[in-house]
Amino acid sequence: MSEKKVVEELLSQRSKRIRRSEIRELLKTSQRPGIISFAGGFPDPFLFPFQTLSQIAAEEILYNARQILQYGTTEGLPRFKEAIIRFFAEFEQQEIRPEEIAVTTASQQALDLIAKVFLDPGDVVICGLPTYLGAIQAFLALEAHLEGISLENDGWDLDYLQKVIKKFKRQGKQIKFFYVIPDWQNPYGIRWSLEKRKEILKIAKENHILIVEDIPYRQLSELEPLPTIRSLDEEKKTVIDLFTLSKILCPGMRLGCVIGTPDMIDQVVKMKQAADLCTSPLVQAIAASYLRHPEFKPHLAQIVKSYEKKRKLMLAILEESLGNIEDVTWTRPSGGMFLMVTLPPEIDTTEMLKVALEEKVAYVPGSSFFVNGKGQNTLRLCWATPSLDEIDKGTRQLAEIIKSTICALSSLSP
Amino acid sequence: MSEKKVVEELLSQRSKRIRRSEIRELLKTSQRPGIISFAGGFPDPFLFPFQTLSQIAAEEILYNARQILQYGTTEGLPRFKEAIIRFFAEFEQQEIRPEEIAVTTASQQALDLIAKVFLDPGDVVICGLPTYLGAIQAFLALEAHLEGISLENDGWDLDYLQKVIKKFKRQGKQIKFFYVIPDWQNPYGIRWSLEKRKEILKIAKENHILIVEDIPYRQLSELEPLPTIRSLDEEKKTVIDLFTLSKILCPGMRLGCVIGTPDMIDQVVKMKQAADLCTSPLVQAIAASYLRHPEFKPHLAQIVKSYEKKRKLMLAILEESLGNIEDVTWTRPSGGMFLMVTLPPEIDTTEMLKVALEEKVAYVPGSSFFVNGKGQNTLRLCWATPSLDEIDKGTRQLAEIIKSTICALSSLSP
Repeated sequence: MSEKKVVEELLSQRSKRIRRSEIRELLKTSQRPGIISFAGGFPDPFLFPFQTLSQIAAEEILYNARQILQYGTTEGLPRFKEAIIRFFAEFEQQEIRPEEIAVTTASQQALDLIAKVFLDPGDVVICGLPTYLGAIQAFLALEAHLEGISLENDGWDLDYLQKVIKKFKRQGKQIKFFYVIPDWQNPYGIRWSLEKRKEILKIAKENHILIVEDIPYRQLSELEPLPTIRSLDEEKKTVIDLFTLSKILCPGMRLGCVIGTPDMIDQVVKMKQAADLCTSPLVQAIAASYLRHPEFKPHLAQIVKSYEKKRKLMLAILEESLGNIEDVTWTRPSGGMFLMVTLPPEIDTTEMLKVALEEKVAYVPGSSFFVNGKGQNTLRLCWATPSLDEIDKGTRQLAEIIKSTICALSSLSP
Repeated sequence: MSEKKVVEELLSQRSKRIRRSEIRELLKTSQRPGIISFAGGFPDPFLFPFQTLSQIAAEEILYNARQILQYGTTEGLPRFKEAIIRFFAEFEQQEIRPEEIAVTTASQQALDLIAKVFLDPGDVVICGLPTYLGAIQAFLALEAHLEGISLENDGWDLDYLQKVIKKFKRQGKQIKFFYVIPDWQNPYGIRWSLEKRKEILKIAKENHILIVEDIPYRQLSELEPLPTIRSLDEEKKTVIDLFTLSKILCPGMRLGCVIGTPDMIDQVVKMKQAADLCTSPLVQAIAASYLRHPEFKPHLAQIVKSYEKKRKLMLAILEESLGNIEDVTWTRPSGGMFLMVTLPPEIDTTEMLKVALEEKVAYVPGSSFFVNGKGQNTLRLCWATPSLDEIDKGTRQLAEIIKSTICALSSLSP
């Protein structure tokens, strides 16, 4: 028997079901020098506060090695939890207790652990249509059934959500949670209104369904923040928050946390024990020190300022170059890192990506964000990574590619 | 409905099945100052090379921030993979290619990913009786059926293994892999003979079963190493190696890797994408630099020397204090970090732990290492963490506790 065959025969069902993403393979090209990439959700690496972090890392290892180079508790380094508590007190006016926090290897692990805690094969998770690709992967790896709710400018279509809940009730299927990204949603970039935040909480409570609220982009806007769904829940029993440092400090430390009731946190910690014992106490210590450093607050303000400039530039160029093109629309976020462009239905953005890469521009084809197999004519753009010059050049370039693709298509049709 | 109840109702089957370990709660006490702990498998923190690591960390962040504070590829930082390849070339005379490696958040994540790749609920994994607790947890979290094979001084009882394989064949059940720790097994401390390494490989091949070979303690002995099972496999198709830096550098970086065929690695990478996207490129860069630092090799030699001294001292004191006690036996490892003590069958070491903690000595009750629910009268001792003085004092103390527990028991019996 061939090697490939032996391995294939022994694979789990989940492993057979999840194919390695073609798009991911295509996008490997996007990291080549010379390509302007709007693809990955990568923060601007020129904004990483490397001088202060370098000094902090050296000191932490020198003075605290015996603690931070050793195994840590699964729950997380107490010092890092305190830093998270301080962050929420200052930026969110929210009081969080240590036992409400489980530190994770960034948000992606939080998604994996939440999936392990709650999902049996076939259990239903309701998410946005489209929604964050990594969440889809994490839930599918645990063999969930994903149902998408289409997005309006102010959040999910909640009337449709009610119908979907009724449908699953009739079928006797258990809906375990809603997966929601209320602030600068990935990939649409929209923000949920206060009314819809309140309403989905009410719906969740009425139906004994949890809400998993993912808030990685929440700080990335100059607008006054709206309350998180969790903060609207007086009893604090229905909503689990997923928080990460990836966008407000850097992704390379792989740090985040789950915030929920002590009972939920207990379950998450149990699963984390089996998943990786603990998140590196070394990086937790470095991050804890940085979060209390006087540089952190102005640094975060600088990130916001820079991303806002980039966002406005990208939106202006899209307007200028594609504003008059029929059947080309895009979302108009007021914060975050992403927007989504929708092209005429006949266009396949995965095919178009090959052309774009030849022309040295990259984006993510939108279909991976749609759990219903649609979205072939959409694409996601991220303005965080490239420079202003690159955004200027790359967005114009992409607009040209879009226009000529549409043109080629219409010249083909009868 | 109470909060606890809502959460409990929504939990997955796996979550309901895995209880939070009582023993783990008990052992939290063992970290209090004044307690001599033989419990956790914690490397000696006084041996962490903090000065060099501090300098390396500072330089890496200063010069490579844009790369190592950013998201990394799921497969691992190329530089860290090269360091692993060099390590295997130098210490194992083995040639490994980059596409045979997937970097993981230490071995525990490797176990979780392997479980996700291969295990459907009810699939059989065969492991040692006893075996590493963390592996049991990872496989149970994916709802595997675990079958234990009793250990002899030179490895599993392979005649019994053959019978077990036949039994599962008759039942039509799929055995996915053997989980083996051939060097200084946790918790027994034994090492597999060359003959048994060859034989289990043959058995695995004949039955189309994989071998997951966990080698965290392999370097921790002054004895000439025996070949790994993977290195004995000419086709390199049957064995997956799990390697970690936790014991040869430090656990706090959470670094390890899976080594297997490119096809297996592909599957592991797919699962890792959903599990945490990537392992921190920052810690990978620091470790890569340390592994190529001239200090690394003598540093490793120093760890081995220190642990060998500690091991010999613990074995000598056990001999001296318990050598004449009937029905008290222990394994006599020639390397690693652990040994296991077996007490008279009437003694429950979980009960005895409460007494031991009062007397300021800690160990791990053995039952958690036995997948057949046995081992209540066993306990695991780790000599790596405490100092020589603490080993001297603590082992004597523990011997006294054992003797008086036996004595109390015999005075109770008719």
